[in-house]
Amino acid sequence: MNKLTPFLIRKIENIVGKKYISTSAKDLVAHSKDWSFHPAKNPEVVIWPKKTEEVSAVMKIANKNSIFVTPWGGGSSTEGNPIPVKGGIVLDMTRMNKIIKIYKEDFQVVVQPGIVGDILNQKLKKYKLFFPPAPGSSNIATVGGMIANNAGGMHAVAYGVVGDWVLKLKIVMADGQIIETGSRSFKSVTGYDLKKLFIGSEGTLGIITEAVLKLLSVPDKKVAKLISFKNIKLCTSAALNILKSDLEPAAMEFMDSVYISYIGKAKGFTIPANPSLIVQFHGNEKTVLEKMNFLKKQMQVFNPTFEKDYIAEESLKKLWKYRKAGRTVLQEIYPTKAILAAEVGLPISKLFNFLKKTDSLSKKYKIPTIIFGHLGDGNFHDWALYEKDNKKSFDKAISLNEELIKYAIKISGTTSGEHGIGIGKRKYLPIEYPTSLSLMKKIKKLFDPKEILNPGKIFLD
Amino acid sequence: MNKLTPFLIRKIENIVGKKYISTSAKDLVAHSKDWSFHPAKNPEVVIWPKKTEEVSAVMKIANKNSIFVTPWGGGSSTEGNPIPVKGGIVLDMTRMNKIIKIYKEDFQVVVQPGIVGDILNQKLKKYKLFFPPAPGSSNIATVGGMIANNAGGMHAVAYGVVGDWVLKLKIVMADGQIIETGSRSFKSVTGYDLKKLFIGSEGTLGIITEAVLKLLSVPDKKVAKLISFKNIKLCTSAALNILKSDLEPAAMEFMDSVYISYIGKAKGFTIPANPSLIVQFHGNEKTVLEKMNFLKKQMQVFNPTFEKDYIAEESLKKLWKYRKAGRTVLQEIYPTKAILAAEVGLPISKLFNFLKKTDSLSKKYKIPTIIFGHLGDGNFHDWALYEKDNKKSFDKAISLNEELIKYAIKISGTTSGEHGIGIGKRKYLPIEYPTSLSLMKKIKKLFDPKEILNPGKIFLD
Repeated sequence: MNKLTPFLIRKIENIVGKKYISTSAKDLVAHSKDWSFHPAKNPEVVIWPKKTEEVSAVMKIANKNSIFVTPWGGGSSTEGNPIPVKGGIVLDMTRMNKIIKIYKEDFQVVVQPGIVGDILNQKLKKYKLFFPPAPGSSNIATVGGMIANNAGGMHAVAYGVVGDWVLKLKIVMADGQIIETGSRSFKSVTGYDLKKLFIGSEGTLGIITEAVLKLLSVPDKKVAKLISFKNIKLCTSAALNILKSDLEPAAMEFMDSVYISYIGKAKGFTIPANPSLIVQFHGNEKTVLEKMNFLKKQMQVFNPTFEKDYIAEESLKKLWKYRKAGRTVLQEIYPTKAILAAEVGLPISKLFNFLKKTDSLSKKYKIPTIIFGHLGDGNFHDWALYEKDNKKSFDKAISLNEELIKYAIKISGTTSGEHGIGIGKRKYLPIEYPTSLSLMKKIKKLFDPKEILNPGKIFLD
Repeated sequence: MNKLTPFLIRKIENIVGKKYISTSAKDLVAHSKDWSFHPAKNPEVVIWPKKTEEVSAVMKIANKNSIFVTPWGGGSSTEGNPIPVKGGIVLDMTRMNKIIKIYKEDFQVVVQPGIVGDILNQKLKKYKLFFPPAPGSSNIATVGGMIANNAGGMHAVAYGVVGDWVLKLKIVMADGQIIETGSRSFKSVTGYDLKKLFIGSEGTLGIITEAVLKLLSVPDKKVAKLISFKNIKLCTSAALNILKSDLEPAAMEFMDSVYISYIGKAKGFTIPANPSLIVQFHGNEKTVLEKMNFLKKQMQVFNPTFEKDYIAEESLKKLWKYRKAGRTVLQEIYPTKAILAAEVGLPISKLFNFLKKTDSLSKKYKIPTIIFGHLGDGNFHDWALYEKDNKKSFDKAISLNEELIKYAIKISGTTSGEHGIGIGKRKYLPIEYPTSLSLMKKIKKLFDPKEILNPGKIFLD
C-alpha cells in the first residue's frame, strides 16, 4: 500500500475544496480513536466531502493509487470500527447531513449519511413521523454509521434493528463506481438483496452516501414501568413471561443490582438494588394504560420488590436518563476504575445462564462486572471494571470478557448483537462462523479487490 | 454443460437410494412446470434427498461434472422459478420435511426446508406458536421455497416477509460445501449477513437444507372488517388513513370491483361490486374489538357503501376463502379465459396512480384486468384475462403486463414484491437495477463458478 503524496493530496483538494481537507494534528487526532479502548492511530489526511460525486472521485484516486480509506460518522463505535489503523484517508461524512426528501404519505425519508440520529428525529417531529431504531448513542451516531454497523438499541424488541428500516442505499464502491440497491417499495424481491450486504459491513464493502429510510407514525403515548425482583432467576422468568404474552413491549431493558446501586448512589435514584426491568409501551393512551394494569397483575406471581410507573413524559425522560447514566456515574464514584465493555447476543432462554456465568467469571478474575442491556431481544452489555493504568487488572478484564464471549457463542449466542466486529472481536469470527468466514472474505475481495476500504476491521490480517 | 450419463446416475443412486431417484416420464413431467405460463421442460432426473449430506454429495458430483441442478419445493412459483429449463437434476426437497427442534422459550423452530407452510403452523399450534408469514400458497409452498423466494403474503403489513423470520440457514453450496450462516440470537452483527443473500436468491446461490425460524405467540383473537367504497380514490385514501393511525392492522387487502363481482356471481358473496378492503386485527379480544369500533368511526368520512364484521372464527375463514377463490371462480364463470398474472411492489402513495394506469391499459389493449393484493405494503397483483388458445389475445395480455411493470418501476416501485424474478421478469432487472445488476452477476459467479444452480433464472443469458 502507498502513502499519500503531496501530489495526490492536491488532487483530492481539488475535489473537495481546500477548506475541507486537513492534515492538521488536531484534525488527525480527532479522527484517530472511537469510544473503544483500542489504540489511537492518526490518518494521513481527513476530508469532508459534500456529495456522492466527491466521494466517488476521491475513491477513484484512492483505488488507483492503493491508498487506504476509512469512513467516519459520529466516532461513537465501541469496537474500534472507524479507527484508521493503517493511516490513509479518513472520509468524515458529517458534512453530508441533509434530509433530501420526505415522502410523508409513504412513511419514508431520504437522507444523507452524516445526519445524527436524534437530529433526524427532531426534524421528523413536525410530520408526526419518526425513525424507530434508537441506539444508545443516537445523540452522536450518524445514520450512515448506524447503517454501516446495523445498530440496535433500546427499542429493537418492538421495532427491530436499523437495517430493518433501510429501504434503499446509494453506495460508492471501492473503485469509485456509484451504485443503487433496494427499492422504495416496502416489499421487493427483485434479484439479490445487495443492500443487506452493505448494512452491517462496517464500511468495508462500500461507502453509504444516501439512504431511503422507512418511518413510523409517532405513537400518541409512551409509558413505562420499572420492576425489581429478588433475584435474577425471578427477573429473567418474569421477562420471558412478558414476551410470551401479547403485551408487545416497546422496550424491555435489564439492569443488574450493581448497576442500580451505582446510579442510586450517584444520582439519588433510590430504589432497592435488585435486578430490574424497564418495560415500556407505545400506543394510544387508553391501550398503554391498560397494558400497564395488565402487566402489574401479571407480575404478581414473581413477587416484585419494587414497582414504579412512569406516565408523564418528563418522568419517563428522567428514567431513561438514569438508565443511560451508567458510564458517567462510574467515572464519578470510582475515578480509579475504567470500563472494559463487551456485548453479546443470546437466545433469550439463555439469559439466566449468561448472568450466572458472568457472576462466576467475576469471582474467578476478581474483577467486578455490571450487566445491563436489551433483555427483550437477548442483547447484553457487560462492563468489566478494571483498575486504571494497571496492566494486570486490564488483562484480567480482557480475559474475563473473552471467556464470556466464547461462552455466549457456545450457548448459541453471537459475538456481537449490536456493536459489530471492528478490531476487538475479529478473533471470534472463526469460532462463530467456521464454515462461512471464507465466503465473507471472498465477498470482501470481490467488492474491494485492493482491500483499501476500512482496513484491519472484521477480518484478522 | 454435460448431460447425465448412466454412470453418474448410478453414482447418485448410491447416494440417495434407488427408491429416491427417478427418470420415469411421470416424475419428470411433474417437475417440469410451476404455476406460471412458462413452457414446461423436463429434467433428466428427479431425486429426493433425505439429508444435508446427501445434497452435498450430489452437488459435488454435479459440480465436478458440470451438471445443472434445480431445487424444487412445492412447485407453486408463478414466474417459472423452479422450471429446469436446461434439464439436468431436479432436487425435490419434499422428503426433507421434518421439524428438527422447537425452542419454545426462544420462540424458535428448526426445520428442514421441505415442510409445507400450513403443516408447520398446524404442528406449532400445540405450543401456542406460529410462523407469521402467510403466502397465499402456504397450503402447498414449502418453507424452503418460501425462503428461497422471500415470499410475502397477506400479513406482511404487520409481520414483514419470510426473510424477516429467518434466523439461521444451513446451505449446501454449488461445490457441495456445507455452510452455516446466521445466529439463534435475534440480534447479530457478526460479519457480513450472508444469510440475507441466500434469502430470495431463488436457489441460484446455494441450496437451503435447514433453517432456524423465529416464531410468535398465537394471537388470542383475529377479527376483520370488510369495507367497500364508491371508487378507488376513496378506497386508497381510506387505506392510507388507516396506515397512518395506530391501528396496526394485521392484514389490509384490496379487491377491485371486478374481483368482488366475480366472486359474488360464483360463490354467492353478495356484496356491492365496489372496490373493497379487508382490514384484519390480531390481539386480545378486547383490544381488537376496540380497534374495530375505532375503524368504523374513522371510515365514516370516506362514506363506505358496505361494511361487514367478521368476528367468529368460522366467518373469518369464510371471508378468506372468498378472497382466495379468485382463480377457481374465474375458471368456473369464464371457461374460455385464462389468467396472465403479474405482480409489483409500489410506494403506497402510488396506489391510486397504479390502479388508474391499469384501467387505461385495460382499455388500450381491450383486455379485462383484475387488481387485488396486499395494499398495506403496496404489493399488487394484476390479472390480465386473455382468450385461451388465442395467441393474439395472449400477446396483448403480455404487452399489458409489460407496460404495467415498467410503469411500476418508473414510479419508484419494484419489478416484484413477492413472486421473484424467475424466468418471466429477468428483462426488468436491467431497468430497475442498472447500476448494481453487474454486481449481482459477480456474486452469482463467486458462489457458483460453473453456474450449475437453477440455470436460466434471475439473469438473462
